[in-house]
Amino acid sequence: MALVKLVEYADASPEVRAVYDDIMTTRKVKAVNNFWKVIATYPQLLRQTWEMVKSALRPGRIDPLTKEMIAIAVSATNNCAYCLHSHTAAAQKLGLDEEMLGELYTVIAAFNATNRIANGYQLEPDVTPTYPR
Amino acid sequence: MALVKLVEYADASPEVRAVYDDIMTTRKVKAVNNFWKVIATYPQLLRQTWEMVKSALRPGRIDPLTKEMIAIAVSATNNCAYCLHSHTAAAQKLGLDEEMLGELYTVIAAFNATNRIANGYQLEPDVTPTYPR
Amino acid sequence: MALVKLVEYADASPEVRAVYDDIMTTRKVKAVNNFWKVIATYPQLLRQTWEMVKSALRPGRIDPLTKEMIAIAVSATNNCAYCLHSHTAAAQKLGLDEEMLGELYTVIAAFNATNRIANGYQLEPDVTPTYPR
Amino acid sequence: MALVKLVEYADASPEVRAVYDDIMTTRKVKAVNNFWKVIATYPQLLRQTWEMVKSALRPGRIDPLTKEMIAIAVSATNNCAYCLHSHTAAAQKLGLDEEMLGELYTVIAAFNATNRIANGYQLEPDVTPTYPR
Amino acid sequence: MALVKLVEYADASPEVRAVYDDIMTTRKVKAVNNFWKVIATYPQLLRQTWEMVKSALRPGRIDPLTKEMIAIAVSATNNCAYCLHSHTAAAQKLGLDEEMLGELYTVIAAFNATNRIANGYQLEPDVTPTYPR
Amino acid sequence: MALVKLVEYADASPEVRAVYDDIMTTRKVKAVNNFWKVIATYPQLLRQTWEMVKSALRPGRIDPLTKEMIAIAVSATNNCAYCLHSHTAAAQKLGLDEEMLGELYTVIAAFNATNRIANGYQLEPDVTPTYPR
Repeated sequence: MALVKLVEYADASPEVRAVYDDIMTTRKVKAVNNFWKVIATYPQLLRQTWEMVKSALRPGRIDPLTKEMIAIAVSATNNCAYCLHSHTAAAQKLGLDEEMLGELYTVIAAFNATNRIANGYQLEPDVTPTYPR
Repeated sequence: MALVKLVEYADASPEVRAVYDDIMTTRKVKAVNNFWKVIATYPQLLRQTWEMVKSALRPGRIDPLTKEMIAIAVSATNNCAYCLHSHTAAAQKLGLDEEMLGELYTVIAAFNATNRIANGYQLEPDVTPTYPR
Repeated sequence: MALVKLVEYADASPEVRAVYDDIMTTRKVKAVNNFWKVIATYPQLLRQTWEMVKSALRPGRIDPLTKEMIAIAVSATNNCAYCLHSHTAAAQKLGLDEEMLGELYTVIAAFNATNRIANGYQLEPDVTPTYPR
Repeated sequence: MALVKLVEYADASPEVRAVYDDIMTTRKVKAVNNFWKVIATYPQLLRQTWEMVKSALRPGRIDPLTKEMIAIAVSATNNCAYCLHSHTAAAQKLGLDEEMLGELYTVIAAFNATNRIANGYQLEPDVTPTYPR
Repeated sequence: MALVKLVEYADASPEVRAVYDDIMTTRKVKAVNNFWKVIATYPQLLRQTWEMVKSALRPGRIDPLTKEMIAIAVSATNNCAYCLHSHTAAAQKLGLDEEMLGELYTVIAAFNATNRIANGYQLEPDVTPTYPR
Repeated sequence: MALVKLVEYADASPEVRAVYDDIMTTRKVKAVNNFWKVIATYPQLLRQTWEMVKSALRPGRIDPLTKEMIAIAVSATNNCAYCLHSHTAAAQKLGLDEEMLGELYTVIAAFNATNRIANGYQLEPDVTPTYPR
């Protein structure tokens, strides 16, 4: 049980309902997840978090499945149970089957390991990208 | 300066040279990065880390650029300076320009934020993937 | 269920009871939380952790509610379920209502996001405090 | 040196300049920090990050110095060098002297320690806030 | 419940069974833990993770109990519930009683605290090991 | 350069000098490291951190080299440059040569990887230690 009570649509203020409506329209779903119902206890947090997530997921040059895989990589590294469930489910809808999920974890595991080795030995960068300067 | 001395090819044992050779052949490069030269101080760590990284990057169903973006997401979340330099450079070679890098960070930033909100309010999962059971 | 058995007051050594008594007196409560009962399995850890926490919370120039908000920020960033429950409850007793909790998470979320962006792009500090040198 | 080139005001697009102007006006400063100049390489990230930070710092029920102390607590826990420099400098301008900074680290250190103990022993929550349900 | 279905021995491919057999032989146990059954959904991840773990635990100059204590220290710092249960149980079999576990957490807690203090104040290294250069 | 000025022995208060003296006596050294000189800006933090570290390192059932290896594991996982330098140097004095350091990182790397896999797939514990209950 979350630390605060969920704000259900029926009990929500017009301001909160407007965000819920936008989430449901954008995502083509009939209800919002509990994540949004919890942060609706502070409408500014709801509004701004939704803008941030909507912006991160808006069509661009990185495809939607890749974005969900990145969300999984971040959530596994930070250990967020709620996020791992919801992003893995979202990625599955976009085509991430068990085999790709396994391939994803070979990548996540490998680089979590090398991060600690590079930091541990206090390696200094010896290669750098060459974006225009 | 790293905490141990780098093992240069000229000074390396046959066992270490064999790994260096495999890295250079696989990556089509003429020298290995300092990361490998540091862990060559313990050949088992060199061999096994290279196997893990080679395995993670071997052609599969997730494309090479996506794998480097995941490496960047993990390294930014863990804060590994060496890794951020090398993976961003590798991603750039695979086509990640400044615009895509920016789009990548909108995703990394958004989900690092939502991870803390979901954990902070102690939300329990309300959606789960439906892999066959 | 914790990995070790809780040490209840009735079964505790005089050394452990002395710490429990000090906790109850300092906090004006009639029992100690399970956190203390678990680390009482190693009295030195109990004694030293209590000294550290008591010292951190002793009246100073940072007010008690701010200290609990900092504890929430640390616990959300590290993801400690036990700590999030207990520090949010403690903050609530000191006046943190749902609205302030929401405002707190706008801050926690924003800076968890910017931390990853600054680290990700490998920004070097361009401003520094001017404490006397 | 950051991984991408900073976008200076003179070279910025009207869209980026508008955000820079808002930052300078809101903060009553004559230039923007490098953080903003880096993310201006992707204007959407600049705009949305500034909205998030402005929103987090807007006057509310948590005072500005407390917000900067929370930013320091998050940045020390995540280890962000750039952020620690800039938030400590910002907190200093709001009155955080060396003594308060020391008191702040007694709190940050204590709860980073207890987080690991509670997680390590796998303690389950035994107290919960009582927000209305 | 894990996000994917466990691969039981009876349903496993010859490739997966070969790894399960090696785990059971090496560890002198009659069944493999769920960790292995989950990653068996992607045999390459199973094989490579087992090689990595077997290699890390193979007899060397660091004794087996110390390796399990290091695994506990890493898992408490990263907060991995599954890992904390399994490594604490493994350490117990190797002789880690409650008293040593408590001593271990005095060390883990102390250095998680000092890590944040050193990072927070942005201390630069003033001592370095003197491995041959 | 640290964010605050170091407190040198010559400028220290009697309270701070007493801690410095105890550090030098306990460690059989002629000067204290910068870590202590930084936190001496807040004597309570100096005193309490020293008590915590002294307590963690006092002779017990876990030998001193193991404790330094645990400190390295924690510091590599959290990424603390100062701590990695000082704990690796301390471990070296206690006998940790390059080969053992490499063996240590095979362990640290392996379990940082498995932590993310176990968390990522949301595995529930299937084994538990059997400390008396």
